[in-house]
Amino acid sequence: MTKNLHTETIVALASPQGIGAIGVIRLSGPDAIRICNSVFGTKTLKKKNLEEVKTHTIHFGVIHDGDVILDEVLASVFKAPHSYTAENTVEISCHGSPYIQQQIIQLFIRKGARLATQGEFTLRAFLNGKLDLSQAEAVADLISSNSATSHQVAMQQMRGGFSNKIKLLRQNLIDFASLIELELDFSEEDVEFADRSDLKNLVTSIQRIVQRLIDSFEVGNVIKNGIPVAIVGKPNAGKSTLLNALLNEEKAIVSEIPGTTRDVIEDEISIDGVLFRFIDTAGIRETTDIIESIGVERAYEQIKLSSIAIYLFDVHEITPNELKQIVSEIEPHLHNSQLVLVANKIDKEDMEYTYREFAEFKNMIFISAKEQTGIDELKKHLVTLFDNSTVNVTETIVTNARHVEALRHTNSALIKVLEGLNSNVSGDFLAMDIRQALHHLGTITGEISSDDL
Amino acid sequence: MTKNLHTETIVALASPQGIGAIGVIRLSGPDAIRICNSVFGTKTLKKKNLEEVKTHTIHFGVIHDGDVILDEVLASVFKAPHSYTAENTVEISCHGSPYIQQQIIQLFIRKGARLATQGEFTLRAFLNGKLDLSQAEAVADLISSNSATSHQVAMQQMRGGFSNKIKLLRQNLIDFASLIELELDFSEEDVEFADRSDLKNLVTSIQRIVQRLIDSFEVGNVIKNGIPVAIVGKPNAGKSTLLNALLNEEKAIVSEIPGTTRDVIEDEISIDGVLFRFIDTAGIRETTDIIESIGVERAYEQIKLSSIAIYLFDVHEITPNELKQIVSEIEPHLHNSQLVLVANKIDKEDMEYTYREFAEFKNMIFISAKEQTGIDELKKHLVTLFDNSTVNVTETIVTNARHVEALRHTNSALIKVLEGLNSNVSGDFLAMDIRQALHHLGTITGEISSDDL
Repeated sequence: MTKNLHTETIVALASPQGIGAIGVIRLSGPDAIRICNSVFGTKTLKKKNLEEVKTHTIHFGVIHDGDVILDEVLASVFKAPHSYTAENTVEISCHGSPYIQQQIIQLFIRKGARLATQGEFTLRAFLNGKLDLSQAEAVADLISSNSATSHQVAMQQMRGGFSNKIKLLRQNLIDFASLIELELDFSEEDVEFADRSDLKNLVTSIQRIVQRLIDSFEVGNVIKNGIPVAIVGKPNAGKSTLLNALLNEEKAIVSEIPGTTRDVIEDEISIDGVLFRFIDTAGIRETTDIIESIGVERAYEQIKLSSIAIYLFDVHEITPNELKQIVSEIEPHLHNSQLVLVANKIDKEDMEYTYREFAEFKNMIFISAKEQTGIDELKKHLVTLFDNSTVNVTETIVTNARHVEALRHTNSALIKVLEGLNSNVSGDFLAMDIRQALHHLGTITGEISSDDL
Repeated sequence: MTKNLHTETIVALASPQGIGAIGVIRLSGPDAIRICNSVFGTKTLKKKNLEEVKTHTIHFGVIHDGDVILDEVLASVFKAPHSYTAENTVEISCHGSPYIQQQIIQLFIRKGARLATQGEFTLRAFLNGKLDLSQAEAVADLISSNSATSHQVAMQQMRGGFSNKIKLLRQNLIDFASLIELELDFSEEDVEFADRSDLKNLVTSIQRIVQRLIDSFEVGNVIKNGIPVAIVGKPNAGKSTLLNALLNEEKAIVSEIPGTTRDVIEDEISIDGVLFRFIDTAGIRETTDIIESIGVERAYEQIKLSSIAIYLFDVHEITPNELKQIVSEIEPHLHNSQLVLVANKIDKEDMEYTYREFAEFKNMIFISAKEQTGIDELKKHLVTLFDNSTVNVTETIVTNARHVEALRHTNSALIKVLEGLNSNVSGDFLAMDIRQALHHLGTITGEISSDDL
């Protein structure tokens, strides 16, 4: 497989699908420059030899299929090993027409490239030693990051922060294992090179770090997928209007080409870098109203799935006593989620008396979803409910399910090592468990060989 | 306005919206390189001065907002006038995350750039003399081109083919006008520098070319928007299956990132470079069947809108006489469209007898939409119905409604000139009409000043 990877040249569209001002097609592999060169010419169709140009230079010209000019393009040339994949690479910046992109890709395939599989450029970067496995995985997280926090966590991981932590742990374990192995070599002499209580302290501290990384996954998951928020309330409380008011911002990204602006982030909102994800908004958007029309059961299900439950009501259609009654009905369903009371339609009447009437309720925000009054206050409140102290992005946070699985396996092996140390088992058994721990740690960054020992 | 354009630096996402391996952000204007430089550093956050690098070079590094690293990027530097806009330009190739793209664009805006309006990069290319107006307009056509023909026509226009034709016409008219003006200068001497019959021949030949360009718009429109095809038939004739069989190909474009593959071209199909557009496929896709369930009226409406009408039928449920009857009912509604009879479900029984039975019908294709038999033959037949002789892409074809409007105005003015020549009006009047013709021709390429005279 590795052989194939190094002899085949791959091609794929690197920019998103769709229409834009430009699209980027990437070619990587030993023949990337030669293949591009065979269909590249100057604007007046003279030959220009891309194989002779310097790395990291850009060349204006045309891609032509015989006499037919497919497009005027910029060709960016990267020579091995100075590219993302460490291979010869050409990036073609063409006009953002799916038709043209398809034609150019097909032409490159006819000239000897093969269509890349998903993530294959990044896979090559890994296989060629440009990124370790955890860094390669961070690329996908980075691309799908949609809040300041998820972005920073992915960025830290891609830049090797997480890998360095894992490597340090591994090095500590390798040092430890060396001592045990040395002991084994001299086992007939009944020598103990490694002080068992020192060993115990070392493994304990490693295991604690691993455990902390495992625990960070809960936060990591929230960072990656957003804090689930349920909006429940009676019909006509204004849920749909509130949802729109919350989502309306920070969504439009302007592009150069007409008709390409679309909502990228659907029913998620990032406030002060924290991502919130609204549950079952399809129901809200169809303005099917939950507590009454579909039944309380469904509202309670949503609350169960949420970390934050917003109970929205028309402040003019409810008395403080009724609200108390509703809160007491909702509370048993809250489990781990926090309740926010949102009083809507403050635009409708003079609110002086109403404010006083409801003064006793905490966690209550007054808004007019229609007039967009109080929306900022509600947003700020949502952010305060998310315990920021648990998300310190300078700390290492695990966001990847594969990583947490490897860490759990590592943890089990380390606990076995500790048990072994406590029950004074022989070095052979300890060494076996340590190798297990090393193996699982190694799978995170892709260093799974056990040659290190 | 020109002043603003030359002092402001603009920024926009140049690649399509959405998630991809990479996204490209373009900065253009006098401060483009300086602005990028202020937030660009090497991977280890050391300073790298992009203002000192050569044009057309690529630089790996990070975009940072103070201490926060937004992304690892490639910065491509283009120095004025060697860029698309003829201004200083930087293209940032970042990870294809809408969040990251938005952050980088916002950072550039804080550092002094302004969000570009739609098409503003291309507008600047025009204002700075890199493209004429008709070439600039071709960029948008090129980006939305979705068949070989529309692509080649747009490419020819962008590369100046159409502009050159218009410029030549204008030059001929200017030469002609010069003679008339000269005559005017010496009018008291009653000299005729220009031989009126030579003039008449010249204007006639120009007017014929303009008329041919106007006529080409009908073809140009088909090239750009596709040949409208109606598929009609009884319920269960298999219209939905046929549509899917026709559309199934050439639509998937593979991208590196999971989940981004989507159909770009909806209910249009390009066969041998000719674009076909299916009418009211929503109805077909919902398998609401037209002739019977919704009524013949709607089917006839569709036929009226089409250039090609496919009548699809289950070959086992109809006799040749019944088919004759149906054809005679459809024929009065055909106007300019051509009828294709498509006999479906040939997979069901032995067809030997059936083929003979229907032998008398011309324009008839036997298929099995289900088994995809005969689909290629049908496609080939559709292409033959489109008179290729009218689309010679080496000929100039007008595809732009603004251009055809300008050409019509030019034509009217030229006809007035001819009338003037025939009725021997004075040079003053001729010169006025010629100026009109020149003005309208000039609007096509953007040379609307009349200093040339």
